[in-house]
Amino acid sequence: MAVTASVPHRLPEAPREARRSAGEISRPMRLSVLGATGSIGTSTLDLVSRTPERFEIVALTAQSNAKELAALAIRHGAKLAVIGDESRFDELRDALAKTGIRAAAGAGALTEAALEPADCVMAAIVGAAGLRPTFAAASQGGRVALANKECLVSAGHVFTAAIARSGAELLPVDSEHSAAFQVLSGADPQAIDKIVLTASGGPFRSWTRDAIAAATPEQALKHPNWSMGAKITIDSASLMNKGLELIEAFHLFPVSVEKLDCIVHPQSIVHCLVSYVDGSVLAQMAPPDMRTPIAVALAWPDRMGAPTEKLDLARLATLTFEAPDEERFPALRVARAAMRRGDTAPAVLNAANEVAVKAFLDRRIKFLDIAALVEETLEAAERQGAICAATNLDDILSVDELARILSNEKLSGY
Amino acid sequence: MAVTASVPHRLPEAPREARRSAGEISRPMRLSVLGATGSIGTSTLDLVSRTPERFEIVALTAQSNAKELAALAIRHGAKLAVIGDESRFDELRDALAKTGIRAAAGAGALTEAALEPADCVMAAIVGAAGLRPTFAAASQGGRVALANKECLVSAGHVFTAAIARSGAELLPVDSEHSAAFQVLSGADPQAIDKIVLTASGGPFRSWTRDAIAAATPEQALKHPNWSMGAKITIDSASLMNKGLELIEAFHLFPVSVEKLDCIVHPQSIVHCLVSYVDGSVLAQMAPPDMRTPIAVALAWPDRMGAPTEKLDLARLATLTFEAPDEERFPALRVARAAMRRGDTAPAVLNAANEVAVKAFLDRRIKFLDIAALVEETLEAAERQGAICAATNLDDILSVDELARILSNEKLSGY
Repeated sequence: MAVTASVPHRLPEAPREARRSAGEISRPMRLSVLGATGSIGTSTLDLVSRTPERFEIVALTAQSNAKELAALAIRHGAKLAVIGDESRFDELRDALAKTGIRAAAGAGALTEAALEPADCVMAAIVGAAGLRPTFAAASQGGRVALANKECLVSAGHVFTAAIARSGAELLPVDSEHSAAFQVLSGADPQAIDKIVLTASGGPFRSWTRDAIAAATPEQALKHPNWSMGAKITIDSASLMNKGLELIEAFHLFPVSVEKLDCIVHPQSIVHCLVSYVDGSVLAQMAPPDMRTPIAVALAWPDRMGAPTEKLDLARLATLTFEAPDEERFPALRVARAAMRRGDTAPAVLNAANEVAVKAFLDRRIKFLDIAALVEETLEAAERQGAICAATNLDDILSVDELARILSNEKLSGY
Repeated sequence: MAVTASVPHRLPEAPREARRSAGEISRPMRLSVLGATGSIGTSTLDLVSRTPERFEIVALTAQSNAKELAALAIRHGAKLAVIGDESRFDELRDALAKTGIRAAAGAGALTEAALEPADCVMAAIVGAAGLRPTFAAASQGGRVALANKECLVSAGHVFTAAIARSGAELLPVDSEHSAAFQVLSGADPQAIDKIVLTASGGPFRSWTRDAIAAATPEQALKHPNWSMGAKITIDSASLMNKGLELIEAFHLFPVSVEKLDCIVHPQSIVHCLVSYVDGSVLAQMAPPDMRTPIAVALAWPDRMGAPTEKLDLARLATLTFEAPDEERFPALRVARAAMRRGDTAPAVLNAANEVAVKAFLDRRIKFLDIAALVEETLEAAERQGAICAATNLDDILSVDELARILSNEKLSGY
């Protein structure tokens, strides 16, 4: 983890400007993008490039692609470009020579980029590497458009407390939570009957349990609707992904775990349904394109145009729904149990799942062993007293580390 | 039409109290129900009876069922009961003797009931008889929960101007417009790409044009999802109903006619879809039960419980959508043309359609003649200069009358 790396290029202190207030549209939104060269980052900047007058780019960061980062910084007139991998600093600095764009490198500089005064920080660094910078963005007090999953899955209580302390505004960027956010807007928690996230059901939706048990990594990597990284594609096949999203939803929205559910919807058109006590169910739909939730997170409560395919229900003709089957998809059951257990259980779940997915991709365990290994790790962590309330990110990182050790120990038994 | 009837029991002037302000929930909502014994009225009072502490019933009205009206007035502790049919006044007065509930009768008294100070008037008198009382409710300045269609279809510009003048709050009560209202709440008109109402498609959805042309009243009266009166059931079979609802939507929501559309959805679960410029489509769903839109109209921006069946998408399994076919359902084309033409064209459309539907039910014309007769009437009205801007309800009523004469003339040619 890069969080303890030195800060070779400490950023000069910038005066903290007044935050842009809601409804004030006379000046551009100051926007930083953490993880600018990734999928969410490039989609964000694609949207920005279509109405550049609405945005003023403050900081862009990337982990290792210095060339692309420099090109994006120049194209969007960023004030600062930060590369996580310090060995790429010279490349970045040279590419930005004479542009007036500041360059910096290292994990500390990533965090400082997140602290630059901005109206909105797109927090799109994936995985554990995104934790420190996203926490920094949360402490900044502006809007945090959150695409990093670990902040909520592993560190939900700590992260939402940081958001509350700074008065920041948290907007989810993935499809399901953006959908929930849009149809929940302003709702009284008492009025909410249920928040139901949809799941595509993945490639094994109609497979028998025996067939799923024998599934290969190649089969699990064939996601029907989205093109994503290997880890999240496996999570979609096991429905662990939906379990992790339920945990995120628990931290994002003011409801108890009993009000959170999911439903299998193979077409991935409806992303979330919120039912209310009066019988109304509000749903958000869209063709699968991350530019829609990104546009929502940038422009809310307004809307900005996004060049996405229009939903054509008459052409789609049919939307289907089915109850998820926790017998065939035990990862969903295990994730829900961790959500109900609370405290650091989701952090253990997430860490153990990462170990398990890697072991599956390395052909060390079978597909259904993923859920089994995670469940065993949760039990072991509970026995060791590691499922407890965490008060800061370091607590979470310690639990995460322990969970990885425990699951690797268990793994040797497979 | 009852609008010129005398006022035998003029109501005493009641001091105008301060209107209940939003967010003020410490005292009950003062509610009047116009059309209390009808389907919407009884559903409204069913909801009221489940949380009586939230409501204080001001006035209840009915057209002719004095016995039921008196029973409702007593059960809900109304202050005033008004019967439209003056010949039933004695029955009402006797039933309310010694209850302390005031009784009145006649069209003028209906209008006065609508003017009684209230936080919300449920305007659920159907047809032309609802026009004057609903206009009175609009002038009152409180919330108008609108279930009467004619106010918007025939008199949209005049009615919305009356609402704007009084500062009243207009909430739609039928399923499709309530759905649109819920997912449009607070939206910037510029952000709206389209408002799409759903239509069940009626009993002739999958019929050929020839079969539809030969359809009998008995066949047209078999609505697949809703149990409604004969007139609206025929309108559902012809899709005229959806055309009328598009006209209502035009007056309710801040969009141009090009942004209004409809889609056939046989399951009648999704009631409206609103698409936004960022690709998001927000939809409202619910099992067919009017208590849901009524609860929305009463409690908005809060929600109140309604004892409706919960939507179970996994059990429903499949939702289907198809483009409406204006070749087989010409009434939709004719209604859209009237909407685009504007001015009093929708009033002519509505009046001619009433004449045509009655003629179809009386077996004087064939099913597809309904649209043809309406279209001919619109052409004749245009030639006579009757498609014009109306500035008050009397203008509308004159045009309505002329349209009935014209369509009856045309009818003799069939």
